[in-house]
Amino acid sequence: MATTRGLYFTAMTLDGFLADEHDSLDWLFEQQTEEGGPAGYEEFIKGVGAITMGATTYQWVRDHLERSGEPWPYEQPCWVFTHRDFEPVDHDVRFVAGAVEDHYAAIAESAGDRDIWVCGGGDLAGQFADIGRLQQVIVAIAPVTLGAGRPLFPRQHDFKLVELGRNGDFLTATYDVVGPRPG
Amino acid sequence: MATTRGLYFTAMTLDGFLADEHDSLDWLFEQQTEEGGPAGYEEFIKGVGAITMGATTYQWVRDHLERSGEPWPYEQPCWVFTHRDFEPVDHDVRFVAGAVEDHYAAIAESAGDRDIWVCGGGDLAGQFADIGRLQQVIVAIAPVTLGAGRPLFPRQHDFKLVELGRNGDFLTATYDVVGPRPG
Repeated sequence: MATTRGLYFTAMTLDGFLADEHDSLDWLFEQQTEEGGPAGYEEFIKGVGAITMGATTYQWVRDHLERSGEPWPYEQPCWVFTHRDFEPVDHDVRFVAGAVEDHYAAIAESAGDRDIWVCGGGDLAGQFADIGRLQQVIVAIAPVTLGAGRPLFPRQHDFKLVELGRNGDFLTATYDVVGPRPG
Repeated sequence: MATTRGLYFTAMTLDGFLADEHDSLDWLFEQQTEEGGPAGYEEFIKGVGAITMGATTYQWVRDHLERSGEPWPYEQPCWVFTHRDFEPVDHDVRFVAGAVEDHYAAIAESAGDRDIWVCGGGDLAGQFADIGRLQQVIVAIAPVTLGAGRPLFPRQHDFKLVELGRNGDFLTATYDVVGPRPG
């Protein structure tokens, strides 16, 4: 059985923001991607057995689906770390509160022999790293600066570049997570 | 005669910082580069006719040279935008105050038919872009996050990826400067 890994698969601006200060992703949806290009979503999602996200990310997904009329896109169990009350939904979303560590075993079990997608935000990804449960960061870098916004990874941390490529307008890069920076 | 371009050649962390909150570059000097690798300094500096930097960057260079005992590394005229008083030095450093626009013609003239290296910080690079005098950003991205520090480019701006590569531990990327983001 393959070992379940924690993978932080996300897009960001060139200056390291996941979203602007108002949680907008307008800068992201302007960019072109190449079907079947490197570090693409379609290939990535096949290897994912469970999804985790913070409340802000979940709220963003809900709002986006409401505006677009698209259906819930994930077949995997989706774990949402939140202290807010969200309305119940008819797909597999599991609301949890507290530390990642307290829920990690259940999340990993729900992923089976596939990986956990740490969808974001940055602090949730950091919490996975804090307990040694984040193995890779796979990032699509949009050719945009915002100057301010939601940070990629609010930690002092070391990584190792293992793969790079170009996908449409994006620079794509895969990093192994090394560990917190000494000092 | 070649047209002088403004080139922002710099290193940053994966999360978009030029230096940490105390202006330290310790995270940078740990990284390995490959001699003659892509987007390398040796090739770059040959095309540079003039250098510009802000006061913080200049202070950092001075401190670094004092600690290391290395001589002043640049043969090109170096324009420092500052309101501080620095001691006079015996190499070609030209202290100026005020807007980039007011000094641009003199800087470009001093560069001859070579380019202007906009060394940093981020706001100086932004000021060059504001007046349409920044053509490219050439960035070496270290596999490190800091969570906070000096920003790459404190502007909402669009770019276009034109080249990417790997140089030792760094992901390197060259962007054409497109313009301020609409809105």
